[in-house]
Amino acid sequence: MTQLEQQQTSDTAFVPLDKIVSLCKRRGFVYPNSEIYGGISGVYDFGPLGVELRNNIRRYWWWSMVQTQDNVVGIEGAILTHPRVWEASGHVENFVDRLVECKTCKKRFRVDHLPPENLEQRKCPNDGGELMEPRTFNLLMETYLGVVEDDRVKTYLRGEACQNIYLDFMNVVKSSRMKIPFGICQIGKAFRNEVTPGNFLFRQREFEQWDLQFFVHPSEMQQWFDYWKQRRFEWYRGLINHKDRLRLREHGPDELAHYARQAFDIEYQTILGWQEWEGIHWRQDWDLSRHSQYSGEDLSYVDEVTKERYIPWIVETSGGVDRTFLYLLLDAYEEQPDPQGKSGETRTVLHLHPMLAPVKVAVFPLKRNNEELVKLARGIYERLRRLMVAQYDDTGSIGRLYRRQDEIGTPYCVTVDFQSLEDKTVTVRDRDTMTQVRVAIEELPAYLLERVTWH
Amino acid sequence: MTQLEQQQTSDTAFVPLDKIVSLCKRRGFVYPNSEIYGGISGVYDFGPLGVELRNNIRRYWWWSMVQTQDNVVGIEGAILTHPRVWEASGHVENFVDRLVECKTCKKRFRVDHLPPENLEQRKCPNDGGELMEPRTFNLLMETYLGVVEDDRVKTYLRGEACQNIYLDFMNVVKSSRMKIPFGICQIGKAFRNEVTPGNFLFRQREFEQWDLQFFVHPSEMQQWFDYWKQRRFEWYRGLINHKDRLRLREHGPDELAHYARQAFDIEYQTILGWQEWEGIHWRQDWDLSRHSQYSGEDLSYVDEVTKERYIPWIVETSGGVDRTFLYLLLDAYEEQPDPQGKSGETRTVLHLHPMLAPVKVAVFPLKRNNEELVKLARGIYERLRRLMVAQYDDTGSIGRLYRRQDEIGTPYCVTVDFQSLEDKTVTVRDRDTMTQVRVAIEELPAYLLERVTWH
Repeated sequence: MTQLEQQQTSDTAFVPLDKIVSLCKRRGFVYPNSEIYGGISGVYDFGPLGVELRNNIRRYWWWSMVQTQDNVVGIEGAILTHPRVWEASGHVENFVDRLVECKTCKKRFRVDHLPPENLEQRKCPNDGGELMEPRTFNLLMETYLGVVEDDRVKTYLRGEACQNIYLDFMNVVKSSRMKIPFGICQIGKAFRNEVTPGNFLFRQREFEQWDLQFFVHPSEMQQWFDYWKQRRFEWYRGLINHKDRLRLREHGPDELAHYARQAFDIEYQTILGWQEWEGIHWRQDWDLSRHSQYSGEDLSYVDEVTKERYIPWIVETSGGVDRTFLYLLLDAYEEQPDPQGKSGETRTVLHLHPMLAPVKVAVFPLKRNNEELVKLARGIYERLRRLMVAQYDDTGSIGRLYRRQDEIGTPYCVTVDFQSLEDKTVTVRDRDTMTQVRVAIEELPAYLLERVTWH
Repeated sequence: MTQLEQQQTSDTAFVPLDKIVSLCKRRGFVYPNSEIYGGISGVYDFGPLGVELRNNIRRYWWWSMVQTQDNVVGIEGAILTHPRVWEASGHVENFVDRLVECKTCKKRFRVDHLPPENLEQRKCPNDGGELMEPRTFNLLMETYLGVVEDDRVKTYLRGEACQNIYLDFMNVVKSSRMKIPFGICQIGKAFRNEVTPGNFLFRQREFEQWDLQFFVHPSEMQQWFDYWKQRRFEWYRGLINHKDRLRLREHGPDELAHYARQAFDIEYQTILGWQEWEGIHWRQDWDLSRHSQYSGEDLSYVDEVTKERYIPWIVETSGGVDRTFLYLLLDAYEEQPDPQGKSGETRTVLHLHPMLAPVKVAVFPLKRNNEELVKLARGIYERLRRLMVAQYDDTGSIGRLYRRQDEIGTPYCVTVDFQSLEDKTVTVRDRDTMTQVRVAIEELPAYLLERVTWH
């Protein structure tokens, strides 16, 4: 983390969302889904750079949370589940928004988003019309299993991914020889019929969550809750430039679930205010008890040493790929005066952590018409791309190629010049400092791998 | 690939499916989804080892198809799409099964699976009862966007993942500076209301596909079709032990889509016969033309040099994670006499390619009660697990620990013994040959990485 820690964080204003939306579309991070058919609000596709960034985010989370943890394993559950799951979880009953509709303009508003005076006076904030009685709508997205009418079973696309972890808890205990305390991680998609999807990736109908459910003896609940709260906060802190835009916010008594002694949100400050990044939840025995009750299966755990039988308590850390993707882009984006450009010119740069950047290195020949330079540059590129995501480019001046890479967050650019032909070295230019060093071609893979991978 | 090429392939009978199902559940590869609620046929969750194997399969495909290819980029599209997509694709009209139901036993059968004599005589193959008229059912799984009754829009979970690639084609052209010929890859889930899900992972309702759509000028269609057919066949061939169980089968004229000049299936032979692993399809301009027509957007491409404007033709290679996961397990499974066990004992071993195996290395201390051995073994394990998926185990005799790892396909087991304390070497035992070599602890990471990663 030293590189980012040392980097000066600028106290510039928050980046407007439309700059990110525009960059994302122009450079292939994010496209509106089904755009040629007019799109669907709250649903997005990820382009060539977006998918690489997402893969890096997922892999690093998995490496941190599963691979390098003694007492954590992963699972990958299905999006389709038995409909009873969502009764047990409380979602069928409680996963709802209350809406009011204006009698004149027909616009709909979430009751919890309405200014109090509008709600009290039953006046529409849009045109002052009369608001109808609030109605309740469930956010679960339904589907049907089976094709024959009288055999069709209604179920739901999972409204939160973590339910699979509770469903598979006993299978993991039996098949993996894990002993409490231990955790189960998962990354996977969830679906919500948001009434007001919008603000780009902030509120989507289809999105990807990551969860850790950490199972503990009740007597150790507090210590593990504190441990994971701290661990997760530091994990996010290590990925950002604007350290002052991250905070832990404790939930007030009115926000707590009835079974929770505490809850924290890790929040990131954006132009839209402080936004939740990850929740640290005290779930007690709620989930396993409910599923025991609804399924009739005993989900209690027996300690092999003490022979005590109990329903484990759970510390949950719940965040996701989409939020991380969005907040890292917001955090990384900077427009700054271009010291190598003409007066008044700016360069746009994404200060993404090198290990998460979608492209790790770009390779350029100084002259595209020089056969020797091109051959050497192509050879270096072909060697590097087997080890990391690399690009080869010769369609512009070196300065222009640097700008193109800065804008997508490529941490290193390698230029093959005439000196390279003599002494078998290349220049490696750093995205953030714009300084260049000469590195021996033979040492280039190790030089870069050391800087762009976690280990 | 040399290691697998050289390995003797045994001509044993095909492994019965129930052995794989049992191993998968017992060791944490695959669990029935929502099992505590009685399960859902055709839907599965993947356990701690299953998810690692899937991740390796996905990453290796991505590395082969995207990262190391000059002219291929990836995308990741949403599962939810605009409903018109499925009209344009033909799925609303044609993605159907025809079913007949028996009047007496009420069982339903797919018309295309019925023996001809039963169909002709309208007799049930189960109880000889009379069969009703065939009816047609669509396999798309539907869902609804929006929560308010009069605003709800019916759409479908994607019935095949590749549609996103056509939808995003123009966005990729504009944002990635790719020039024809080039390809777009994607890995993602698809959903089908299979009338007869079953046979474990062979026919699922939720499954994960991978596709390459390679866009070409019509005049180059045949050469790229041949290229990818061969490339994909060799890719699969490099992953399996039983080379004789893989074949390319050309579709007969009655199987071809109207726009296809040719089509091939890469097939793998199992106890259930030859099964499709991947399809190589000649899609011509069908997909882009249909989406142009239905959306009103011009999806033609302009060649920058010749200025020719045309709808690109497409070579598709379409397979998936689940099939690969299943066939690799079937291919890898072996029970053999245990040369180190008592007479008549067998060892079960998964001969998975080392780069795909879920656990790369297991580390054991020779004696669990010897503090020095344990400390050294733990240290080695903690160093290795930052570089690859590793396990530490000391809960049995070394022989038993080897068997446990053999059964999950771990290619290498490292034992720390008394000699290790003297000369800083360990034994590394090979899963397939069961031979042991001594390797210096300092060289162990490089020794293993060379054998378990692609590069």
